[in-house]
Amino acid sequence: MNTEEFRRNGYAVIDWLANYWQTVEQYPVLSQVQPSEIRAQLPAHPPQNGEAFPAMFSDFEQVLLPGITHWQSPNFFAYFPANTSPASVLGELLSAGLGVQGMLWATSPACTDLETHVLDWLVEMLGLPEKFLSSSSGGGVIHGSASEAMLAALLAARERATQGVTNQLGTNGNLVAYISTQTHSALEKAVKIAGIGLQNLRKIEVDEHFAMRADLLQAQIRADRAAGLLPFMVTATIGTTSSNAIDPIPQIAEICQREAVWLHVDAAMSGTAALAPEFRYSHAGIALADSYAFNPHKWMFTNFDCDCFFVADRTALLKALSILPEYLRNQASESGSVIDYRDWQIPLGRRFRALKLWFVIRDFGVSGLQKLVRQHIAWVQELAQQIASHPDFEVLAPVPFNLVCFRHRLGDEFNQKLLERLNTNGKIYLTHTKLNGRYCLRLCAGQTNVTREHVQHAWVLIQAEAQDLQAQ
Amino acid sequence: MNTEEFRRNGYAVIDWLANYWQTVEQYPVLSQVQPSEIRAQLPAHPPQNGEAFPAMFSDFEQVLLPGITHWQSPNFFAYFPANTSPASVLGELLSAGLGVQGMLWATSPACTDLETHVLDWLVEMLGLPEKFLSSSSGGGVIHGSASEAMLAALLAARERATQGVTNQLGTNGNLVAYISTQTHSALEKAVKIAGIGLQNLRKIEVDEHFAMRADLLQAQIRADRAAGLLPFMVTATIGTTSSNAIDPIPQIAEICQREAVWLHVDAAMSGTAALAPEFRYSHAGIALADSYAFNPHKWMFTNFDCDCFFVADRTALLKALSILPEYLRNQASESGSVIDYRDWQIPLGRRFRALKLWFVIRDFGVSGLQKLVRQHIAWVQELAQQIASHPDFEVLAPVPFNLVCFRHRLGDEFNQKLLERLNTNGKIYLTHTKLNGRYCLRLCAGQTNVTREHVQHAWVLIQAEAQDLQAQ
Repeated sequence: MNTEEFRRNGYAVIDWLANYWQTVEQYPVLSQVQPSEIRAQLPAHPPQNGEAFPAMFSDFEQVLLPGITHWQSPNFFAYFPANTSPASVLGELLSAGLGVQGMLWATSPACTDLETHVLDWLVEMLGLPEKFLSSSSGGGVIHGSASEAMLAALLAARERATQGVTNQLGTNGNLVAYISTQTHSALEKAVKIAGIGLQNLRKIEVDEHFAMRADLLQAQIRADRAAGLLPFMVTATIGTTSSNAIDPIPQIAEICQREAVWLHVDAAMSGTAALAPEFRYSHAGIALADSYAFNPHKWMFTNFDCDCFFVADRTALLKALSILPEYLRNQASESGSVIDYRDWQIPLGRRFRALKLWFVIRDFGVSGLQKLVRQHIAWVQELAQQIASHPDFEVLAPVPFNLVCFRHRLGDEFNQKLLERLNTNGKIYLTHTKLNGRYCLRLCAGQTNVTREHVQHAWVLIQAEAQDLQAQ
Repeated sequence: MNTEEFRRNGYAVIDWLANYWQTVEQYPVLSQVQPSEIRAQLPAHPPQNGEAFPAMFSDFEQVLLPGITHWQSPNFFAYFPANTSPASVLGELLSAGLGVQGMLWATSPACTDLETHVLDWLVEMLGLPEKFLSSSSGGGVIHGSASEAMLAALLAARERATQGVTNQLGTNGNLVAYISTQTHSALEKAVKIAGIGLQNLRKIEVDEHFAMRADLLQAQIRADRAAGLLPFMVTATIGTTSSNAIDPIPQIAEICQREAVWLHVDAAMSGTAALAPEFRYSHAGIALADSYAFNPHKWMFTNFDCDCFFVADRTALLKALSILPEYLRNQASESGSVIDYRDWQIPLGRRFRALKLWFVIRDFGVSGLQKLVRQHIAWVQELAQQIASHPDFEVLAPVPFNLVCFRHRLGDEFNQKLLERLNTNGKIYLTHTKLNGRYCLRLCAGQTNVTREHVQHAWVLIQAEAQDLQAQ
């Protein structure tokens, strides 16, 4: 593909995306293809000679598109959203075309500097403590996902707790990490990866709102210390994946301070709610956290991947992740006056992800972002009231933001069937969870183009499908 | 930005990139900005209201572009390349616009199925063993980087060596990993991350070609076993970062088989050379490797990030990385008939990266890719001969592919100054390494648009700059 063909094909892809976003509601939200259906249509061997772009694009439309689950549909209410926006997509396009590496400041200074700048902006935008600013002892960095942020936080916490000994001698089996039964599974995965061992992970029970019980956390830490173990990290959550529960950060933070245990706060989706000051109550206590992460790629209109990870004191993080081979040495790094983000993350290489985030913040403006977040929350809270007042349905958990967990009163099997019918129908896509052992449906509204009508229509469909199912 | 504005702005970005690639040689390859120069030009606070795209784009051009180091310049000879191509960029654009998650098969079947398919193609394209096919006991997956592949391989190796005990009980300090003194630093980082401890990492000495000495590896493994330790992983390299050395994989693989130690082969850049059958000699012994990774984002015209990671037996990898919370359960996964790539990688979320790789392979065709790789190698080998026959310069390591390490005979300080002058001049960008304690320059030609003339021109500039410096 030469440059002129790139122009022509590039315009075509831009047009296709514009049309796609406008017509996405005509596709089933959840792809209805069967395993092996797609591969059966693809040639078994790679082409010997180059092909023209229109041929590939036609295959994309004919063969692959039926296998797409439409995360950008306003009828996508599953999991957490992974939303995007036109400005973000153009940022990703520009980043791909520049193709720069941001592993070191010197390998593309603008990539590092814009990242530092935008992450400082976000401290202001979310009302986070000043210690997360790059001008303080801490700072922010873009990771690929909240999973990677959790792993990085865990490594920094271990580094601090063992004063670097684990890096030299290995993990000795006496380190203990704490989560709640509702914390994201990524922390469990991080514990496996880091060689801590799952028997050194304590899952603290939650209260009736699915929030971590600080009293049980305190008791467990004391018991572990008494047993000669070394408590080193607590992960608390603002907006759990299962039910959007908010752990009592002020109490947990106080315990962590007293016990000299690293506190990581995971606000992967719901951190975005803090854009609106009236929802910052959820971030109470954050001033005592050692690290914090939220994902603009979930609910802030920035396409995956874009997780913003902040630390209060970057020393432990850098010690845990720095390695300096000769071939990466350079004057700028050795001057100490620049940031080399490779030392803030798991991998070495990194894309210019700050570009899309910068475009998004400038495109929407702070007030534009606040407006969407407030709307999404208002629409889901309206829905939650409707569900709660319906005789056949019940809401199973508090609804602080834009996610509601609910079920039909006819039990697990009925709800399972209801979900399957709704998703097979293809008009909306919901997922499920279990709360107190009970199977329930989850509806999360955070897609960029979702409106009150989409949320209300989902509710109409849910009721209708439930009636049909009941009538069988 | 509404959809019509997206069309207009999208065309503008496409045009800008087309022009950028055509005119990239007019910029200094290595950005000449100073620390804090860029941030000083950016507003301290985020905008309250949304802005028009042209305003942002103008800031990109005025403020950020001077801070870009031009990895897509054909005069970029530093590090390893991170090249891209028009087809790849359109794949990334489409992926960003679709914004699908590939963490589970069900969350977008096409994303998983195309990835499996294209990685099977690559097994054929590189002449890799059939055990890396998805139809065998193994299979391939796209990771973000070779660092992540190394970490994943290490975790799978540990899982196999300890039969999963480390996942439960933690790392017990008796596991030992082996690399050469020339292996990429990412493996050292993986050892820290995994809690193995740096004292459990053995750096085996290399021979006069900077390749791992298999005899010393064997002796070290025996010594460690005799000391009651558990050797569990060797990482060998095809094309080291420093000098592009090729470790003796056949001998190393034989040792690993005998000792029941996991062999990971890192061919991050030079794996691409195996596209051409005449360079597959470098992959001799690969049939005995447990895992293998190479990066199309380095030398196969696919924009970062795209590392292809293959395992011979996926069982240990899946055991090391699987976690299944209720909210991710689904019928397709439980049927066992689909791949859920989240269990093959460190993070949970994942982009639709197979799209760009598929576009690249179809756009160039196998023969088109082979042609470029052969040319790059031929041009660098021609250059290496010229350097070797110049009275003032010497080549310091074998040149199997597209990277040459050389130095002026006037010593470390002279070469350091020479590199600084060349890079400050901005016409080309080289980096350095140390071989046998001697500072030397590295020139790697792998950028998509590099020609013989660019390589030859670099040599002219190097000689001229050296003469100038000598004359001072």
